[in-house]
Amino acid sequence: MRANRFLFSSLAAVLISMTVVGMTTAADQPTPGERALKYRKSLYQVIVWNFGPMSAMAQDKMPFDPAGFAERAQRIAQLTPMLAESYPPESKGVADSKLKSKMWDNRADFDAKLQDLVDESAKLAQVAKTGDEAASKQAFFDTANACKSCHDEYKADD
Amino acid sequence: MRANRFLFSSLAAVLISMTVVGMTTAADQPTPGERALKYRKSLYQVIVWNFGPMSAMAQDKMPFDPAGFAERAQRIAQLTPMLAESYPPESKGVADSKLKSKMWDNRADFDAKLQDLVDESAKLAQVAKTGDEAASKQAFFDTANACKSCHDEYKADD
Repeated sequence: MRANRFLFSSLAAVLISMTVVGMTTAADQPTPGERALKYRKSLYQVIVWNFGPMSAMAQDKMPFDPAGFAERAQRIAQLTPMLAESYPPESKGVADSKLKSKMWDNRADFDAKLQDLVDESAKLAQVAKTGDEAASKQAFFDTANACKSCHDEYKADD
Repeated sequence: MRANRFLFSSLAAVLISMTVVGMTTAADQPTPGERALKYRKSLYQVIVWNFGPMSAMAQDKMPFDPAGFAERAQRIAQLTPMLAESYPPESKGVADSKLKSKMWDNRADFDAKLQDLVDESAKLAQVAKTGDEAASKQAFFDTANACKSCHDEYKADD
């Protein structure tokens, strides 16, 4: 354990300073809200990357690859439950966000929409495992509509 | 299906244009290599966010919360296998990356180190499920050392 702690010390110092809320006070450190927004955007990037080929397959713009589709569906199902943590109260009003401020007055509705995305993602992963092309595509559209339902209400236009 | 396709159309247009390699040609679109780097950085952000509280717990800077630790360990085990795809040949030489260029001449070694991280992450998630504090902390340090082993060789200093 001691050798490991030694090897680990420099990485730990970086990680701790970057990631434990309230542990740093330097003026150039991001606020907890800014950190949450960065996490949120990163999560969406990872989701969108994996959504892309699925979207192309679902719309017959790429050949349907059941294994690839299922792998990405599994990832989406793993990623969407991580989103809730990226909308803490501390992130209210943080700059450079497309989140409409009315979300903070409609938190229960927002959370329900997010849960709907989690639920649809879980179904998508289950259906994709079967390799059924039509059912997989339908489950993808259902998941994409869960995205859109929330974006329509709470995401500012590009 | 038709109603869903209608609802989905605008989101699909955005996703397709953002994410399907080679489908867009506008000059201001990121290259495939730039897109991969953005995905890579996003993945590491998501990993680091989840690593933070685990790191603090492993070093006794936060109380050990077995359920929270296990949930984040599970996430790490889900995320690390996504990293390999973020280092495609197209990303060689892309600006704003801390990846040392020598990686491209040592790809097998790099891939082995990445696989080691995937393996250690999987062990970490398994151990964390048991709730055993000492074993969980040791597995965390083993995973962090897998990070460090690759960073020492292939990541430029900050």
